[in-house]
Amino acid sequence: MSKITAPDGDDASRPPRVVALGGGHGLHASLSALRRVTTDVTAIVTVADDGGSSGRLREELGVLPPGDLRMALAALCGDDEWGHTWSQVLQHRFRSEGDLHGHAVGNLLIVALWELLGDSVAGLDWVGQLLGAHGRVLPMSSVPLEISAEVSGIDPREPEALTTVRGQVACASTSGRVRSVSLIPEDPPASPQAVKAVREADWVVFGPGSWFTSVLPHLLVPELAHALVTTRAKRVVALNLSPQKGETEGFRPETYLEVLREHAPKLGVDVVLADTGTVEDTAPLTSVVGELGGRLELADLSRGDGTPRHDSDKLAAALERILTN
Amino acid sequence: MSKITAPDGDDASRPPRVVALGGGHGLHASLSALRRVTTDVTAIVTVADDGGSSGRLREELGVLPPGDLRMALAALCGDDEWGHTWSQVLQHRFRSEGDLHGHAVGNLLIVALWELLGDSVAGLDWVGQLLGAHGRVLPMSSVPLEISAEVSGIDPREPEALTTVRGQVACASTSGRVRSVSLIPEDPPASPQAVKAVREADWVVFGPGSWFTSVLPHLLVPELAHALVTTRAKRVVALNLSPQKGETEGFRPETYLEVLREHAPKLGVDVVLADTGTVEDTAPLTSVVGELGGRLELADLSRGDGTPRHDSDKLAAALERILTN
Repeated sequence: MSKITAPDGDDASRPPRVVALGGGHGLHASLSALRRVTTDVTAIVTVADDGGSSGRLREELGVLPPGDLRMALAALCGDDEWGHTWSQVLQHRFRSEGDLHGHAVGNLLIVALWELLGDSVAGLDWVGQLLGAHGRVLPMSSVPLEISAEVSGIDPREPEALTTVRGQVACASTSGRVRSVSLIPEDPPASPQAVKAVREADWVVFGPGSWFTSVLPHLLVPELAHALVTTRAKRVVALNLSPQKGETEGFRPETYLEVLREHAPKLGVDVVLADTGTVEDTAPLTSVVGELGGRLELADLSRGDGTPRHDSDKLAAALERILTN
Repeated sequence: MSKITAPDGDDASRPPRVVALGGGHGLHASLSALRRVTTDVTAIVTVADDGGSSGRLREELGVLPPGDLRMALAALCGDDEWGHTWSQVLQHRFRSEGDLHGHAVGNLLIVALWELLGDSVAGLDWVGQLLGAHGRVLPMSSVPLEISAEVSGIDPREPEALTTVRGQVACASTSGRVRSVSLIPEDPPASPQAVKAVREADWVVFGPGSWFTSVLPHLLVPELAHALVTTRAKRVVALNLSPQKGETEGFRPETYLEVLREHAPKLGVDVVLADTGTVEDTAPLTSVVGELGGRLELADLSRGDGTPRHDSDKLAAALERILTN
């Protein structure tokens, strides 16, 4: 795929500056696509994970949860044997009957750099250099966060009653329906480099990804939310291919946008990208997209293998069309 | 310090090929010195450690103990910020109240590469490339080994009775006096690359280091021992600065050589390097050195700070004098 250039006139020869927001597998998908479209990608990653290897490291060593940051770095690894090998090393997980079981090596490496350098962004930049990464990976906040959700339907006798659920794993796997999320602490410091990247971006891409626990949290960090609302960048929202049990069960395509608007009423959206196969009726989706000030782009984005994951080639092609218009 | 060239005539312009044998801090010292003397260093490292982070990894994941290999790689790291930073990352140890406490990050990284690549030498070469290492680090055997020692003096009522002690940590910290060591398994496979390096070397340097548990084990791996005895390389033995409690308590300088001869009767020695301050009476040492077919070199090698560690500058200067003669 040919690289494209910036949409505005300040330097028509430079590649477009794209910021991708998310965490986990969804962000891995958007980064795997965006690296083919531009050479200037910055990932801004949620730091609220409390499960698995990340959760254990956070608990044991008092650090940011590194897992989503590691996965984003791996997605941006260099194209050569060097980049691919170190990316595989970062993604490698120990399997044993003992203490190391389940830890991803990249998580341990990132945490070691943080402890050694005392600076989370510098540590991630060193891992980026190791990988020959096609872009930069930043945490959305410099402190570990906790997600708190208001959930309905937990008690079947009172289906509309709201229960507070704390922790990313608990929120993502609730038996009820997540209505809204907030962060603890409520007013966390944004990563200054992340705020700067949003301010200087040409494009900001929200999603795909776990909607409440990976995509919306960025809009709950006050300085970052302000930058996202006020940046001159155009905003693209990439919808998920299918609802996630617990977190977004029963969501229609327009529901993602309604929830986004509830969490960030001032946020304008320029383009909403949805998979053709997920939209049975375009009318309600088009209506909400219009209310947000944007246009709808439909494309075939799925792998077609029954998984809810985006096809990298198709997502890259769709994002390239959007970023060149 | 100026780089010097090979002692023989096959290619007078190439740097001398030096193989350093040992493990742990002693090998770190010889490598830190040798990297200043030549650009062609190969470290051959014991793989019998059963303590600390290495012992736990060996037990949990069934791999070679990586710690001494990691320390050797760190000693050979590139001179620039890149090499120094990754060397520090490799040497970094987690400190916590939890499962990761005491693990060195480089051990985890090396083990991950082994699991991923399925080849211990290839994994070490990748870490060497990461560090921009001034040389190569090889395990002496491709399988984890156990050290077994015959120890006297454990029962004060029978001071000459021999007790068998198993495991590197137990041997190094015995309350008795180590008389001899052997390996379990008795006939382990040598690393083919290590045998080749010894065959093609101009110089082989034994020690300094824990005599029974880091220096002598190489002579107990049959193929490696054969290569060490028959190589056309000249052999240098660098003696320790002071006896180690348990392992070499009460050793005089000549005792190291007597023990070496007992474990490898056919091994000739060309040069014995000893610290001037450790030799009160040169006569017995000179006599044993002569019986081995070598010459004695005395030099001030100590840091002068009360530690039993060699001064890198002084050791490098002494080795350079030896390698140019």
